[in-house]
Amino acid sequence: MSDAIKLPAEALWSGDFYNEGINRDNLFDKLKEECGVFGVFGHPEASHLCYYGLHALQHRGQESGGICASDGSQFHYHRGMGLVKEVFDNDKLVSLKGSVAIAHVRYSTSGESKLANAQPLVFKYREGDLAVATNGNIVNAPEIRSRLERQGSIFQTSSDTEVVAHLIARSQHDDIVDAVKESLVQLNGAYAFLFMTNGKLIAARDPHGLRPFVLGKLGGAWLFASESCAFDATGAEYVRDIEPGELLVFDAEGMKEDRFSPPKKRAVCAMEYIYFSRPDSDIDAINVHTARKRMGRKLAMESFVDADVVTGVPDSSISAAIGFAEQTGIPYELGLIKNRYTGRTFIQPSQELREQGVKMKLSAVRKVVEGKRVVMIDDSIVRGTTSLRIVNLLREAGAKEVHVRISSPPFQNPCFYGIDTPSRKELIASQHSIEEIRKAINADSLHFLTKEGLIESIGQLSEGEHGGQCTACFDNIYPTEVPDVEAAACGGCD
Amino acid sequence: MSDAIKLPAEALWSGDFYNEGINRDNLFDKLKEECGVFGVFGHPEASHLCYYGLHALQHRGQESGGICASDGSQFHYHRGMGLVKEVFDNDKLVSLKGSVAIAHVRYSTSGESKLANAQPLVFKYREGDLAVATNGNIVNAPEIRSRLERQGSIFQTSSDTEVVAHLIARSQHDDIVDAVKESLVQLNGAYAFLFMTNGKLIAARDPHGLRPFVLGKLGGAWLFASESCAFDATGAEYVRDIEPGELLVFDAEGMKEDRFSPPKKRAVCAMEYIYFSRPDSDIDAINVHTARKRMGRKLAMESFVDADVVTGVPDSSISAAIGFAEQTGIPYELGLIKNRYTGRTFIQPSQELREQGVKMKLSAVRKVVEGKRVVMIDDSIVRGTTSLRIVNLLREAGAKEVHVRISSPPFQNPCFYGIDTPSRKELIASQHSIEEIRKAINADSLHFLTKEGLIESIGQLSEGEHGGQCTACFDNIYPTEVPDVEAAACGGCD
Amino acid sequence: MSDAIKLPAEALWSGDFYNEGINRDNLFDKLKEECGVFGVFGHPEASHLCYYGLHALQHRGQESGGICASDGSQFHYHRGMGLVKEVFDNDKLVSLKGSVAIAHVRYSTSGESKLANAQPLVFKYREGDLAVATNGNIVNAPEIRSRLERQGSIFQTSSDTEVVAHLIARSQHDDIVDAVKESLVQLNGAYAFLFMTNGKLIAARDPHGLRPFVLGKLGGAWLFASESCAFDATGAEYVRDIEPGELLVFDAEGMKEDRFSPPKKRAVCAMEYIYFSRPDSDIDAINVHTARKRMGRKLAMESFVDADVVTGVPDSSISAAIGFAEQTGIPYELGLIKNRYTGRTFIQPSQELREQGVKMKLSAVRKVVEGKRVVMIDDSIVRGTTSLRIVNLLREAGAKEVHVRISSPPFQNPCFYGIDTPSRKELIASQHSIEEIRKAINADSLHFLTKEGLIESIGQLSEGEHGGQCTACFDNIYPTEVPDVEAAACGGCD
Amino acid sequence: MSDAIKLPAEALWSGDFYNEGINRDNLFDKLKEECGVFGVFGHPEASHLCYYGLHALQHRGQESGGICASDGSQFHYHRGMGLVKEVFDNDKLVSLKGSVAIAHVRYSTSGESKLANAQPLVFKYREGDLAVATNGNIVNAPEIRSRLERQGSIFQTSSDTEVVAHLIARSQHDDIVDAVKESLVQLNGAYAFLFMTNGKLIAARDPHGLRPFVLGKLGGAWLFASESCAFDATGAEYVRDIEPGELLVFDAEGMKEDRFSPPKKRAVCAMEYIYFSRPDSDIDAINVHTARKRMGRKLAMESFVDADVVTGVPDSSISAAIGFAEQTGIPYELGLIKNRYTGRTFIQPSQELREQGVKMKLSAVRKVVEGKRVVMIDDSIVRGTTSLRIVNLLREAGAKEVHVRISSPPFQNPCFYGIDTPSRKELIASQHSIEEIRKAINADSLHFLTKEGLIESIGQLSEGEHGGQCTACFDNIYPTEVPDVEAAACGGCD
Repeated sequence: MSDAIKLPAEALWSGDFYNEGINRDNLFDKLKEECGVFGVFGHPEASHLCYYGLHALQHRGQESGGICASDGSQFHYHRGMGLVKEVFDNDKLVSLKGSVAIAHVRYSTSGESKLANAQPLVFKYREGDLAVATNGNIVNAPEIRSRLERQGSIFQTSSDTEVVAHLIARSQHDDIVDAVKESLVQLNGAYAFLFMTNGKLIAARDPHGLRPFVLGKLGGAWLFASESCAFDATGAEYVRDIEPGELLVFDAEGMKEDRFSPPKKRAVCAMEYIYFSRPDSDIDAINVHTARKRMGRKLAMESFVDADVVTGVPDSSISAAIGFAEQTGIPYELGLIKNRYTGRTFIQPSQELREQGVKMKLSAVRKVVEGKRVVMIDDSIVRGTTSLRIVNLLREAGAKEVHVRISSPPFQNPCFYGIDTPSRKELIASQHSIEEIRKAINADSLHFLTKEGLIESIGQLSEGEHGGQCTACFDNIYPTEVPDVEAAACGGCD
Repeated sequence: MSDAIKLPAEALWSGDFYNEGINRDNLFDKLKEECGVFGVFGHPEASHLCYYGLHALQHRGQESGGICASDGSQFHYHRGMGLVKEVFDNDKLVSLKGSVAIAHVRYSTSGESKLANAQPLVFKYREGDLAVATNGNIVNAPEIRSRLERQGSIFQTSSDTEVVAHLIARSQHDDIVDAVKESLVQLNGAYAFLFMTNGKLIAARDPHGLRPFVLGKLGGAWLFASESCAFDATGAEYVRDIEPGELLVFDAEGMKEDRFSPPKKRAVCAMEYIYFSRPDSDIDAINVHTARKRMGRKLAMESFVDADVVTGVPDSSISAAIGFAEQTGIPYELGLIKNRYTGRTFIQPSQELREQGVKMKLSAVRKVVEGKRVVMIDDSIVRGTTSLRIVNLLREAGAKEVHVRISSPPFQNPCFYGIDTPSRKELIASQHSIEEIRKAINADSLHFLTKEGLIESIGQLSEGEHGGQCTACFDNIYPTEVPDVEAAACGGCD
Repeated sequence: MSDAIKLPAEALWSGDFYNEGINRDNLFDKLKEECGVFGVFGHPEASHLCYYGLHALQHRGQESGGICASDGSQFHYHRGMGLVKEVFDNDKLVSLKGSVAIAHVRYSTSGESKLANAQPLVFKYREGDLAVATNGNIVNAPEIRSRLERQGSIFQTSSDTEVVAHLIARSQHDDIVDAVKESLVQLNGAYAFLFMTNGKLIAARDPHGLRPFVLGKLGGAWLFASESCAFDATGAEYVRDIEPGELLVFDAEGMKEDRFSPPKKRAVCAMEYIYFSRPDSDIDAINVHTARKRMGRKLAMESFVDADVVTGVPDSSISAAIGFAEQTGIPYELGLIKNRYTGRTFIQPSQELREQGVKMKLSAVRKVVEGKRVVMIDDSIVRGTTSLRIVNLLREAGAKEVHVRISSPPFQNPCFYGIDTPSRKELIASQHSIEEIRKAINADSLHFLTKEGLIESIGQLSEGEHGGQCTACFDNIYPTEVPDVEAAACGGCD
Repeated sequence: MSDAIKLPAEALWSGDFYNEGINRDNLFDKLKEECGVFGVFGHPEASHLCYYGLHALQHRGQESGGICASDGSQFHYHRGMGLVKEVFDNDKLVSLKGSVAIAHVRYSTSGESKLANAQPLVFKYREGDLAVATNGNIVNAPEIRSRLERQGSIFQTSSDTEVVAHLIARSQHDDIVDAVKESLVQLNGAYAFLFMTNGKLIAARDPHGLRPFVLGKLGGAWLFASESCAFDATGAEYVRDIEPGELLVFDAEGMKEDRFSPPKKRAVCAMEYIYFSRPDSDIDAINVHTARKRMGRKLAMESFVDADVVTGVPDSSISAAIGFAEQTGIPYELGLIKNRYTGRTFIQPSQELREQGVKMKLSAVRKVVEGKRVVMIDDSIVRGTTSLRIVNLLREAGAKEVHVRISSPPFQNPCFYGIDTPSRKELIASQHSIEEIRKAINADSLHFLTKEGLIESIGQLSEGEHGGQCTACFDNIYPTEVPDVEAAACGGCD
């Protein structure tokens, strides 16, 4: 085992540990979640619906939240740091008047004031008010921004969204729909966009469909969301996925279906299925829990191991673990328990207490794993520090053997489409062989799901209407042009 | 079906819905959780350890938290409303100096100022400072309290703990250990007590062992907790359960094992196994998850039904659902998903939005249950409103049949030992036949685990060293004298 | 000048500096304010009235506030740390139902949890609920407390009030009025007491009338307050001062005037006139502002100095400064300005910034004092550090001469009646001659008002109905028995 | 008396009543305060100095505060709603690293999100980072903004400051100093500007010097402030007023004195002397307290009345009242007392309690005014509701006569230079004769200071180096072009 992948105890206690999340990404070194968008057109309690919708999308971003409503002549908006329930109270929601609203939860920004980057962003330009919320990342935003700055534009955020607003304001078209279309064609990237004026709401999804985006209906109102689970939460009915390259316009005359681009090769982010989305969401008509369970079954077929118990790392790996257990007949057990109460304000233990074993978020169940050969299912390995820590938890609790099975292929390449990944040098699977990783994480055996197994598990998407995922993080095949991968900073969610 | 068990939609939206909890008891009408105690003797960071220990016991009480530390000559304490992470910040913990500390989380009090009842309670009496924290309920506290009041005692709380403090202060014994023993023998009830002076820490468990209480060790320090999961969280080693009737004294001379009562017939609260405790805790050496899984298996044996999927109500029924699935071979699925972010500050939807279907905490996964025959495993039915709501969630999501299986016997009798139960009239199983309940909750079939099945599932406890549970809520056989059950208000945790 | 009275720059930056107060006592080393009480009998919005009444008494205590209301059968109460406006919001006030209420603001407690000592204290005893709020100090509380502890009493606070509650509960009398009377006669001290049960409100003032206490009327309701300014704030009419030794009982049958003691030699705290009370209050029918102005005039007569401007230390010395200016014809100017926004959360400047001259609360007005001979009027000198600092402020702003005139005699003896004074060793006037003090505070001249001048300024009180102040802090003549003055800790407000 | 000036009791309870302020402008209907700016160049604790400086300027704006620091390569900033002490804690200040910083307090914005308008505003443009803070108002901002929008600019605030940032970004000049100069010459208005890049700080004052702006020094560091009182608070030395039309540039090479405009006719806002500024500030070398006192003396000469006491409305009219008393020999008394603790979170009394006389902020001192002929000095009358209320307070407290004297001429014209004034229709002096106003405010007599008296009182400014005030609000002579006064919305502080 090379020095490079020694993962010392201290490294296991990163600040990320203390962020709250429905997925366990907040343990140690997991991928940063993306953002989530939600919108309502034509409901008298639009802001309240946004609140419940954002709440259902909270796992996509816990750093900040915002809602901007239009009463037809004026915007009313509020944005703040924290969980949706912390940012809004009833008085605030009531003050956000109007039957049209767009909303956003955000994971994180780098540098600068974070609040300034909270969305929806709200602008005034020659045609009046404009609000924008987006999930995704614009690969060529830096180039466009430089060009705009040379032309005298000023920026108040580090957000790609502000770039798009400038393009709209500088468009030759007075009509907002034309201006949005003219702007979107200049973009290279992954996105679900919601634009709002005092009169119109526009929804658009990138030409490859990299980020999920669904359309719903609640009585006479239209709803928009990053994930379908937000429709269940608001009592709305799922209508359909917004199509890659599609642009939907809503105004007093109803919905108009339009396009700003022909659809390109469909490339839905595979990590949405593997890890990001809530298990009760459907993406492009495929249920996430079901896909994960198939990943677990497939993983079992590809890398069976004789063992006593199967356990999943909560919460995102539970479905795959159940699938693995069903396929193998090895009993599925709650070998790892997560404490639900840990949150941002939690006090970090002193060095001494950490060394004495204070744990906060995850614990292994001794009676379940003691003396047992344990199969530990996880969804991915990023730097490896998380995995080492969990394997050690299981060993300290008496596990005789720990066999790690990962329900996705080795994560080797940075993402430019809205997921905040470390550089290649920090991706353990990019630098080391599987055997080296196995040693580094102290596992008795280690297997990753193959790319073919993954594709097959997700479903009949490889061809036909719904065909195609983006698996660039596994195979280095990016659906759009990307910067020099070795050098580039990787694109977190905007 | 009688009128009495019509459960209208409105009734489903009680305020309890909005309380946060690791168990789903906060959904609708579940049993109120009890309290949790934690203590440290002989560690330089005693308060910090209490913080992490309480955090692991947070599921036992989310209303208030408190820590009292002794530096050998003086107490330093802080109590507040809310989750442990909200009550304490690092400055507060640092100010709670001393190597001995006791701590408490509390669920709820009735009437009056809630903060006044937050524990540990701290008193001054002729021998100096005294702090007390307890989990449980003293059945004869009202009688003792009346007697004390007649003798001129004043009370600042409605807590049983203050009654015990008065007994200690009025004892003829100057020695705190003797005074505590003299006081405890006057009590009839269920309890885990921690007493602290500037010099001594005393732990005592009721003679029947109704409430759990465990002893651990972290280096040279002794730790005390309501559940063993708090030891895992603090890196401590489980030593043993404190015995019924036992009294342990810790001071500069180390630990002294003593008794205030001979052990009586062991009667550990069965609901701790069924529902209250964390799955990674062991109670009297039996792991909770494992016991629950056996309940699920047993339930399957007793009431098999041909179905397509098994789902558990998160989080407390997951283990039993897994057991049921394993026993029957019906696949276990995540048919119900809980939103982790709902909390006390959450805004309640308007009547109109509720009618339109806004949900906050639990949603059914359409792709998993649509067109399927679903077995829904839950741990108990109290009033029935929760069950009806969940069954309806599943039906709205397309379930063809919903078969409800409960991993405990019908809950028919109030608890006097620290669980806040409704009166008999409100207990649906006390007033109605199983067939009536089935109709009331809109299920296709309904079965409860038998008492024999329950006992057998919990383990080899019915005789021998660890023999005996309290199952009074199911069979009306109370291990101690209790008030007139029909009339009595039922004893929440003190 | 002895070393003992070098007052180094660092000493000027005590923590007290940062407390907020209407008086400038929070500057540096001023005397600690006492508490304030307020009560209502027979008004449907009793709690709201308490809120406004406490607000007007806020200068008497900014550390904690509390209100306890009775709806006739039950108490509703809330207490918290901070200003009245921080402790209560409208929801809280609305929840404090009932037409009878007592309320309290408190300055400070030593040691222990401060919240536990916030008043009103609420007890249950054999006759039901009892709430108590008080302003003052019980000199013999420690003796009574020891006796009670020997009899088995437990205490949850360090407050004298709890001692009185024990006396009431242990009284042979079942009737609350008899029990209160029996208890009060055992006390030696200074106090304004409000007692409340579900049915009665009782007000009592100590036999010497040391602490102020007034009775008012608002429509059909009776109001009680430490100072009459609280009646102006609530629109109530001042009725009369409660008499020394008097006990007023209010219940369904109206007011009953009673006594628990014959009035003893009247001894109203002179510091109330000099410094504590609001200028718009009347104490025993004498207006505070007017009395202070007379002190200023008298001081001018006793110690005229030729100068260019007169300035007062805001806020408590403004009235005396105006009087001094009028008497001498020297113009009164705003030579010192106080920043109103400083509060408890204010960040203390670093050592370096302090040395560079960062000031927070008080600044001298250069244009007013530059090149001038300044008379600086202050109400008292405790340790001398404040005075030195202010004199230096004036000198740094260019004052040519600074003549300090104090509108009270030298403060030489500790108070046992509710004012938190330092021990004699720390009282500069107790240890040093006036000339030594003058040097220590860097003044060109220094004079104190004579005791005779003070008495005369307060008014026609030295004989007749309203005769007599307590001037023990100046002349060592205490109206009641007191502990060994040299050794004793001095009695802050309870 | 016309109906138009009946001022009903209810009108007296406006929301403004509850804002906190050092001046009493927050009572009822006073003029809205402007903003305040502060800056530091070259001090290691620049952010902390800003904190103390803003604190001293808090009376100029209590709604929001912000600090932006530059460490030479990067900005660090924080803005928030509330008082300076609420917006910042020590951790926040420490995180604002750098030796250069600019800071801002703001009173109020209309419409929209208030936080978005909090300053300093921070932008990125082609040359890097730019931060801007300003006090004042740009009269022609709407025109410039329209032009920019037509050219494709987008705006995120309603602030004039953003307009200026656009001008800078669109300048042909790459050099920031040249770009700022090119931008400022396009502006018509009143302002004190602070611009900051990572390397330079630029301060500029409008060509008429309408808004105050001073330069100070603390050791080797340069300081900038709206008022000189902020230098006293930070221990800094006043150097000089920044000149009208002047532009000072600070960078690694030190200070460079420059101009963007020749000085035009000096026109310092007279209201700064009358009402806005702190009495301990000097504006253009004239002390505010001293000027106010002269106004009081002059007012006495112009409109003597035989009376028993003189009282000023706290806090802004105290100086004038002292001057009036000195001139007339009528004693100055504290006839009106302000409660210092009222703040934004204060609970408004119910209609019923208001009718019963609950008062919160100001009370009359009965013993001072009862049976007396009172001269009440105030600084201005806007709508008249305040004055009526205070006169009534005095009458209710027994004043026999109330003679109102105003230390400024009748306020008849809106301000376009940074003071938020009502439209002419709401200005009582614009619509009514002095006799009508007298009746409306229920005074026995009423006089205003003449314009000549005002000018003379302010000092030798009418000619020579420091000559000239803006008195447009009194005489309708605006120093710059202004919009149609009848129609225009009036310009609050930016």
